Order: sequence, then structure tokens, then C-alpha cells
Amino acid sequence: MLAVTILGNNSAVPVYDRHPTSQIITVGNQLLLIDCGEGTQIQMMRYQIRRRKISHIFISHLHGDHYFGLIGLINSFALLGRLQPLHIYADKKLEHIIKIQIDAGDNRIPFDLYFNTIEEGVLVDEADFTVTAFRTEHRIPCFGFCVEEKKPARRINGEALLQYKIPTSYIEKFRKGDDVLLDDGRLIQNELITYANTPSKRYAYCADTRYTESFVKYIKGVDLMYHETTYLDNLSAQAYDRFHSTTKQAAQLAKVVEAKRLLIGHFSSKYEKLNDFEREAKEVFEQTALAIEGTTFLA
Amino acid sequence: MLAVTILGNNSAVPVYDRHPTSQIITVGNQLLLIDCGEGTQIQMMRYQIRRRKISHIFISHLHGDHYFGLIGLINSFALLGRLQPLHIYADKKLEHIIKIQIDAGDNRIPFDLYFNTIEEGVLVDEADFTVTAFRTEHRIPCFGFCVEEKKPARRINGEALLQYKIPTSYIEKFRKGDDVLLDDGRLIQNELITYANTPSKRYAYCADTRYTESFVKYIKGVDLMYHETTYLDNLSAQAYDRFHSTTKQAAQLAKVVEAKRLLIGHFSSKYEKLNDFEREAKEVFEQTALAIEGTTFLA
Repeated sequence: MLAVTILGNNSAVPVYDRHPTSQIITVGNQLLLIDCGEGTQIQMMRYQIRRRKISHIFISHLHGDHYFGLIGLINSFALLGRLQPLHIYADKKLEHIIKIQIDAGDNRIPFDLYFNTIEEGVLVDEADFTVTAFRTEHRIPCFGFCVEEKKPARRINGEALLQYKIPTSYIEKFRKGDDVLLDDGRLIQNELITYANTPSKRYAYCADTRYTESFVKYIKGVDLMYHETTYLDNLSAQAYDRFHSTTKQAAQLAKVVEAKRLLIGHFSSKYEKLNDFEREAKEVFEQTALAIEGTTFLA
Repeated sequence: MLAVTILGNNSAVPVYDRHPTSQIITVGNQLLLIDCGEGTQIQMMRYQIRRRKISHIFISHLHGDHYFGLIGLINSFALLGRLQPLHIYADKKLEHIIKIQIDAGDNRIPFDLYFNTIEEGVLVDEADFTVTAFRTEHRIPCFGFCVEEKKPARRINGEALLQYKIPTSYIEKFRKGDDVLLDDGRLIQNELITYANTPSKRYAYCADTRYTESFVKYIKGVDLMYHETTYLDNLSAQAYDRFHSTTKQAAQLAKVVEAKRLLIGHFSSKYEKLNDFEREAKEVFEQTALAIEGTTFLA
């Protein structure tokens, strides 16, 4: 399973009970965190996120509404006695920012905390997923992320295992799609035992950005694409000046990407109601949803 | 008027909709902020604090639950176009922590931001109030603060001004308590025109601390005293080890101080209900109240 849970959907200043950017990605049995605005740990409690399961944190860029909550989360992990390692991917400057705050409090971090500098390309390649980073066009260096599930090529047909009396020690070989020679001398054709797995899903988080097609190659055809829409369509000049996007730009990019569905968020604090965001984006790309806080979207 | 509004009353990890430490002090027409845990700016919106009026911020010490919200507040002030200067009083290390985060975001701060290192003694001496700092006994350097109103010695009796036909240009002289010789040759005795002002009020914020009487001399007889009670009475050994206090220790210190009223807060996340805190403290010092978030207490 690949899913995203929205913890914060507002830009810059928190308002109207909307919070700065943060998203939980569920992939298999692991949780990843993308961005961590102020109050993220409080939002995690509100939406009952099992935060101990977070193994990797990705910070798109060093504007405060995308990372001011990280030191508090790390501090709470320490106070709660976390022992599992935590892998952080961010701009190089973040490590110093976090470490001087740990030092200033004379705090002990009981788990291994690894900082990794983001560069374009494959960032993480784990057994169950990969994360690829791509540059967006923002006022300071900023990266989006594409999270992709990894699945075995074939799924085991349990009935067939029994029917052909296949020892379980052969399961991994069948999963890979090979025909298998058993110790008893039988050569078993793969398709007798397995069927094709469902395709792996992909989720693209396009961070903060002006309209640009520069990263389309990294996310072509994704199942679910999040793109910021700080402003409505009539403020496209302001969006350009401030390195942000409008509803119609996000929707247009979803078309170019050939995304199956689009999620929009990072709404400016000047808008109390969000229905115009949904309406304008849908005029260009029908499969659009607002990134409402507390909601989980399957890729 | 001197009053305190509680924005956060929990220790360390936010939980049960309780937030890390933060208090707004209203003194005359100004607001002061004492401590600024993560989410303080969100709490300010929830309780409709006019945050533009905050002129001074005091950070007791550099444990995260007392300052992780400061960078977000400063960032929001900048985004909202604040122009009034802001005076911050804290450990010397805070300036670097804040400035590298401003620099990392390539942000512009449109107002003057002054950092001052806290030392014991009078920190601020303004027209309407003073703030005095005192050391507490904590794991890292930590200061409490005593806020005192400044009032003129005498208040003007408006009826008497009319009756004796006193030009308003003499009002300030009468306020100071002097007899005044008018230009028309009359010597007017002060008590004909004025009456004694109500006494100036004092509020003491005792920050995070073990039980200690070392700072009693700074806060003797205060009208309102806030003291932390991280733990109930049965965990006094743990309180000592962690440089915190219990209910009965806070209440005992209020007795030694001869405070008129005691406010208790900084509750450990292990306690969901707070009624035992109130009950235990009142067994020692009857005039005790829980520092409930969103509540304003007059000194």
C-alpha cells in the first residue's frame, strides 16, 4: 500500500486551524515524513499517527513552514526513549541548525540520527520502496520527491502451492518469476504457482515551486501527484514573483505529467474558504482533490 | 493592570491538548511574552492575543519546550509586515540559533530585532514596568522573571482640579506627590488634589526549577506567583533528579515567599487529569490555581 496523510496544508502563517506543510507517507509497513512545519508533532497526535514507525524524514527546503517542527519532533522522540535510527534528508545546513539546538539544551539523543544532503536522483533505495528527489523552481534550493513502492514481480497462489506440494523454501524463487527446479527433480513452471502482482504505485510531492515542466521526467504518469496552489488563478503574477503556483498551473502540470489524480495544498493564509481552489483546478484537471488535513489518500 | 494569560501549561512533550510553556503578560497597554514553546503562535490565534502588541520576549532557558516556537513567531511577524522593534532576552546562544534559521531561509526581517543576554538583576526598566531576572536551579542555566507595574505615587482627583481651577499643565507635578506653587501665586497642598494610588502589582514567573529558596529575596510578597509542578508529591525524588518540583514544593515556596496567590503549571505528560495537582498544592497553600490554558489571571 502507498498512501499519503495530510497533516498540514497551509502556506507560511498558520491560520483558520490550517497548519504548515507536513505529510505522512505510508508505504508497506513503514512511515515516511515529508516536511515538518511547526506543530507537526501535535497534528500527529490529533490524527493518531504512529510516529515511532517513521524511519525517514524528507525536508524539501529551509523555509520555516516546512521544517520548524522538526527539532520539536526529534526532541520528543528522545524524551520518549526512541531507539530506532532516524534518517533525515535535507539541505546541508539543516544538520547544524538541529545540532546546535540539541547542544544548547544539553540533550541526549538515544537513537542514531543520520543527516543526508539531498541531491537530484535516487535518494533512498530500500527493500520496499525508493525515493527519488528532483529540483523545483523556488526562491531557495528546493526539492520534490517521488515515492515508489517496490513489489515482487509475481504473487504466490496459495492453492497452487498446496496442489503441487511446493515446500515454502521455494517461495522467494517463484516470486521473482522464475521456473524452479525442485530437489525432488520436478521442474515447475512459474505461472502454475503465481500470478502477476498489481503494479507498484507512485506518489509525487512537488514541494514549493513556480510552474515548471523541468521535473516532469521524474514523475511522468504517477498515480497521485501533490502540487502546491498557494494562490487562485487571478494572482498568477504574484505567484511568479514569489516562486509559487496557482490552481490552474498545478492542474495544467498534472495534465502534462499525465498524473492519475492531483492533490492541491499550501494555501495562502489570505484565503479562509477553499472551494474556489477546488473549482478552478477542476476546470483544467477533473481528478483533483483538496489536501484536507487529517485525510488519507491512496496512491 | 497586570495580568497573565496562559498559552501553554505542559512540560516537554505536548499531549492531551496541553501545550509547551508560554505566557502572555499584560502590563498597561503592552504585552510581554514569557517563554515560547512550539505552537505558541497557534495558541495566540486560538485565544485572540493581539500579538503585534508584544514588545518584549523573555526566554527562561534553552530547553525546547520553552523556545522552539520563537523562530516561527518571528517568521510570522516578518511575513505579516511587523515594523515595531522586538526585544528578546535569553541565553546568549539563542541569537545564533535564530539567526542561522533566518539566513537559511534567506528571509528578510523588516523590524529591528534586539537580542539581550539575561543576567541576574533588573533586565528592563520601562516607563510602565520593570522586569527583574533571577537564577533558578535547573539542569542548564535558567532564569525566572519578576514583572512589576510602575504607577505614579498619587492619582488625580478630577473634581478637585475643577474646584481649585488647576491648569492641566500642573498634573504631572501633583502626580509625583509634591505640593505645587502655581503661577498665580497659590501654593496648593498635594492632598487637596490627589489621593493615594493603588499599590503596583508584581508577578513572579519561577520558570523550571528544583525546590530552592535562593531567589525568594527577588519575589518576596508578590501578588501572583507562578511555580512549576511537573510532578505530584509522591515523585519528589524524580523531581529532584530532573531539576523539577512537585505540587507541595511549589506550595511550600509560595508560603515562604508570602505570595498572595499561586499558579501551578508545567505538568508532566504522564498525567492526563490535573485535579490531584490542585488538591495537593491546596493542602499546603490554599490560594492555588491551576494554570489552565486560555485563562487570564489578574495579579
